[in-house]
Amino acid sequence: MAEKYINLKHLKFLLHDVYSIANLQQYDYYKDYDQEAIDMTLDMAKQIGDTYLFPFYTEMDKNKAYFKEGKVTVHESLKPAIQAIAEGGWISAHESYENGGQQMPLALMNAGLFVFYAANANAAAYAFLTQGAANLIKTFASKALIDAYVPKMYNGQWQGTMALTEPQAGSSLSDITSAAELTEEGHYAIKGQKIYISGGDHEAVDNVVHLMLARIKGAPVGTKGISLFVVPKYREENGEFVSNDVTTAGLFGKMGQKGYVAAHLIMGESDNCRGYLVGKEHHGLSYMFQMMNEARISTGMMAAATASAAYYAALQYAHERPQGRHPSNKDPQQAQVLIIEHADVKRMLLFQKSIVEGSASLLIQCSLYADQLNVASGETKEQAYLMLELLTPIAKSFPSEFGTHAVSMGMQCLGGAGYCDDFPLEQYYRDIRVNSIYEGTTAIHGMDLLGRKIMLQKGAAFKLFVQAIQADLKTAQAYDEVKPYADQLGQRLKGLHELTMIQVQVAMNNKPEVFLADASLYLEYFGIVTIAWQWVKMANKAAEILAKDPTSKEAAFYQGKIATMQYYMAYELPKTLGLHERLLSDDKLTLKLDPTYLD
Amino acid sequence: MAEKYINLKHLKFLLHDVYSIANLQQYDYYKDYDQEAIDMTLDMAKQIGDTYLFPFYTEMDKNKAYFKEGKVTVHESLKPAIQAIAEGGWISAHESYENGGQQMPLALMNAGLFVFYAANANAAAYAFLTQGAANLIKTFASKALIDAYVPKMYNGQWQGTMALTEPQAGSSLSDITSAAELTEEGHYAIKGQKIYISGGDHEAVDNVVHLMLARIKGAPVGTKGISLFVVPKYREENGEFVSNDVTTAGLFGKMGQKGYVAAHLIMGESDNCRGYLVGKEHHGLSYMFQMMNEARISTGMMAAATASAAYYAALQYAHERPQGRHPSNKDPQQAQVLIIEHADVKRMLLFQKSIVEGSASLLIQCSLYADQLNVASGETKEQAYLMLELLTPIAKSFPSEFGTHAVSMGMQCLGGAGYCDDFPLEQYYRDIRVNSIYEGTTAIHGMDLLGRKIMLQKGAAFKLFVQAIQADLKTAQAYDEVKPYADQLGQRLKGLHELTMIQVQVAMNNKPEVFLADASLYLEYFGIVTIAWQWVKMANKAAEILAKDPTSKEAAFYQGKIATMQYYMAYELPKTLGLHERLLSDDKLTLKLDPTYLD
Repeated sequence: MAEKYINLKHLKFLLHDVYSIANLQQYDYYKDYDQEAIDMTLDMAKQIGDTYLFPFYTEMDKNKAYFKEGKVTVHESLKPAIQAIAEGGWISAHESYENGGQQMPLALMNAGLFVFYAANANAAAYAFLTQGAANLIKTFASKALIDAYVPKMYNGQWQGTMALTEPQAGSSLSDITSAAELTEEGHYAIKGQKIYISGGDHEAVDNVVHLMLARIKGAPVGTKGISLFVVPKYREENGEFVSNDVTTAGLFGKMGQKGYVAAHLIMGESDNCRGYLVGKEHHGLSYMFQMMNEARISTGMMAAATASAAYYAALQYAHERPQGRHPSNKDPQQAQVLIIEHADVKRMLLFQKSIVEGSASLLIQCSLYADQLNVASGETKEQAYLMLELLTPIAKSFPSEFGTHAVSMGMQCLGGAGYCDDFPLEQYYRDIRVNSIYEGTTAIHGMDLLGRKIMLQKGAAFKLFVQAIQADLKTAQAYDEVKPYADQLGQRLKGLHELTMIQVQVAMNNKPEVFLADASLYLEYFGIVTIAWQWVKMANKAAEILAKDPTSKEAAFYQGKIATMQYYMAYELPKTLGLHERLLSDDKLTLKLDPTYLD
Repeated sequence: MAEKYINLKHLKFLLHDVYSIANLQQYDYYKDYDQEAIDMTLDMAKQIGDTYLFPFYTEMDKNKAYFKEGKVTVHESLKPAIQAIAEGGWISAHESYENGGQQMPLALMNAGLFVFYAANANAAAYAFLTQGAANLIKTFASKALIDAYVPKMYNGQWQGTMALTEPQAGSSLSDITSAAELTEEGHYAIKGQKIYISGGDHEAVDNVVHLMLARIKGAPVGTKGISLFVVPKYREENGEFVSNDVTTAGLFGKMGQKGYVAAHLIMGESDNCRGYLVGKEHHGLSYMFQMMNEARISTGMMAAATASAAYYAALQYAHERPQGRHPSNKDPQQAQVLIIEHADVKRMLLFQKSIVEGSASLLIQCSLYADQLNVASGETKEQAYLMLELLTPIAKSFPSEFGTHAVSMGMQCLGGAGYCDDFPLEQYYRDIRVNSIYEGTTAIHGMDLLGRKIMLQKGAAFKLFVQAIQADLKTAQAYDEVKPYADQLGQRLKGLHELTMIQVQVAMNNKPEVFLADASLYLEYFGIVTIAWQWVKMANKAAEILAKDPTSKEAAFYQGKIATMQYYMAYELPKTLGLHERLLSDDKLTLKLDPTYLD
């Protein structure tokens, strides 16, 4: 078996069978993406992954990026990787044809992203970070800024970054203190420090363009006084590129993603750092947040894709490693069996598969909503908006949290070998963990879900969510192998619904601290149910296909979907029972806790 | 707040208040260990930890052990650390006075181990591995071997190892192929390869003594043909130490515990490797297994101690880091609050505390059983045997599995900082993960618990376990702050009991594959209940102390026990609900699964 990091067939099953992405052709912007174009696009992504990304995944870790004498050196494979992704048109994929883009649906682009991230998230992340930064300029900045920056970002010559975090302002963006002062020349003088800036400086590109949050002198305090600036490493002056006084103080020594630099940057140390305002003064955070859904789905993709690569590495090992015998046959004269024969190994692999494919399904679904939000109108657009808002915290946090467990299970399949760097599992284990921290920690998403999204338009999003699941549960009634499991989800959904109503009551009768205290657990509960829904959808489709052609030589693929759905419902969905019990309580144990009790 | 890796007060609370270790004085062997001696011993352990271990924890990781030109170089702090532990009498602690030991109760010794492992498991592990190997020689080998090897192991000059694993025989020890052939000189000629040998070779000691499993030529196949040998790196010949043909092929590149070498060893490459039989031919595995309980408790200790150090690092950060504001007060004009004020951070800290202290309690309890097994007689001894057998798989696997989650929560408390090596969390995260693999993977312990221990003496151990918990639940009726939570445990215990009876039925009516398929989940269920029991015991004792002196300035310490018990019952114990539901099912989903469905 060749080394594998994704199953392209699964992505195509999602895009064609489960989500019928080609239906987007009804919208003019996406008219060229029929099934064939979709498949070709994905195949091309796989080719880039096979050639420019996957072969260098462990190398980029073992020869990690480093900072020396003011320069950030990255692995030599990075530049060709960024170039290949750029030349494949991926950085500008979603852009219109007239602007040099491909008008690619986000659902397809994100399926491509899944391929790239699974092949080598540490390399691919640079290119897709640039995409996010370029899109931000494209959407909100002046034509002059767009013309000056976007083309070189789209073609991979320049790196883009998101420069948000400061030493005193991580999760709390309202506390940003980086300063901007309007000069007579029309630009802003920038002064401040930024930390954990991914892609913040490196030599595989000619320039680095920071999309930086700062506070204009005299701006209101808090989130309403934050503005967005383009702050390049090198600025153009009279046709020459000169230093823009952005100094790299060092790189952070990360546990994983060692090929993907996180820089500590100092802007304006010599009072010579220029920033160019994007959009209007004091609107920076709202611009940033409009891109945040994208960034969060991208983070979910990174986690799910890393778990995918880990899954296939563990699966390969399980197919090749003989160890032990079945409990009813301990005869040492007989050969050892392959570990994939052991029930517990199958359980660990099913767990991984259920998390990886369930997450991918949710992420494609969210991407499709984003597409509808872009091009549809009326009820479709409104519903897409609501569902995307509601599901984004799940799409970001579920793959991050459960993906981390999945990779740990992958490591466990290998035993001691999994803990050692002769196999890639230990790197996946280190790499995936950061996703629960990127783009808002899990706790932040819990508060977003319960504190904002559930209440959105008086609960309209949540209502839509329940209805959408119920529709798929109804479809499941036609398939004997799905029905009893779908009915279990129906029960749990009822539980989630009841519990949500209770939470809303608590919210109305108390300070927000009370109902938000266990928001992280509510998020977990909601996530488990959401992924169960994905599995019902996938199993329905697999059952439909199997019913048409039960002797297909591809039957194992579809049987695999049904078996994994059954696993998920039998082993994972019951985890909501404990969460339900906990969330029913209003004992305020954590709120009341005297911190000195912890010493 | 000074940096802290354990709370000595908690260990003393366990040893004195919860387990009354000084009662062991009734046995002659332990007659000198009154409260004062116990406290002094622990304080001395802490001093060694503070001086020789903790300061070098991260250094040993950043300057990891390496193999070059045939030599294994370790951090310079290792030799003094081993020496300090040896000179403190810890390697021979359990040994009799006449043999130069301290006749120290295992419960106390393991409390000391907790201190050392929390301070720096990578360094301390060398010394305690030597202890295990020396004890094996001491217990089963001839006087000549004891005299030749044990003294230099006890004084830290020589390293001991356990050389079990081979490339084709990890979990499946019956498949060991290393060969031993009796020579005319009386020793055995050894030939074979061993992998993952912890402490297998390094220059901080003068010699390395491998306790090695091998098969004597003509031995029966399987476990009944395995013998135990002493195989030193250097052997004595005519008063000189010469090479014994044990070659280090290299070190494994571990994800964590980088200061603690895992070697690949080749014995007898030049047909000049001598082994000295320990005990009788073909009895090697049974000798090894008699030491295994100790090694498993030690692994549990390593996990719990690592989680302890991570907890205190996270707690310190939470006490020092301001970030964000309470949900009902978002005024950016006001200062940010310390993150320990946030309910979700308190939840994450309580989780860690509940796992660390609950695990430590179980491990001390098991150690006390081991002491009773050593020195008691009659019913006490018999009950200690049964309880120790039953609880060992939990004592090994619960701290390993939940400790890994606890460290992850600790990392999450720090956000981005937790993922970077300016803080020790990322190292704890990497280090602790191996404990689910050491000394039998979690799956192995699940099968041990359900397949062997539950059935032991027709369920006598399980019956004792239930009775012991019920006794503590009865005590809890006297304390209002414990009672309702203890009653919840009573309910769950009933559930575990019912489920166990069902499992036994399944076992009688089916091949063992069926009831063992979900043994890992049964282990998890059993573990959650067992730690809940620990918390009832600790809370009972805390409530008793508070009732006597409610205004004590130490009240916060005891209130902390009660609060953590309440947290555990409210947040962790309900996790058994999902496991219960799953384990009731006999759908054989994993057993039946066609492996091709996973591709």
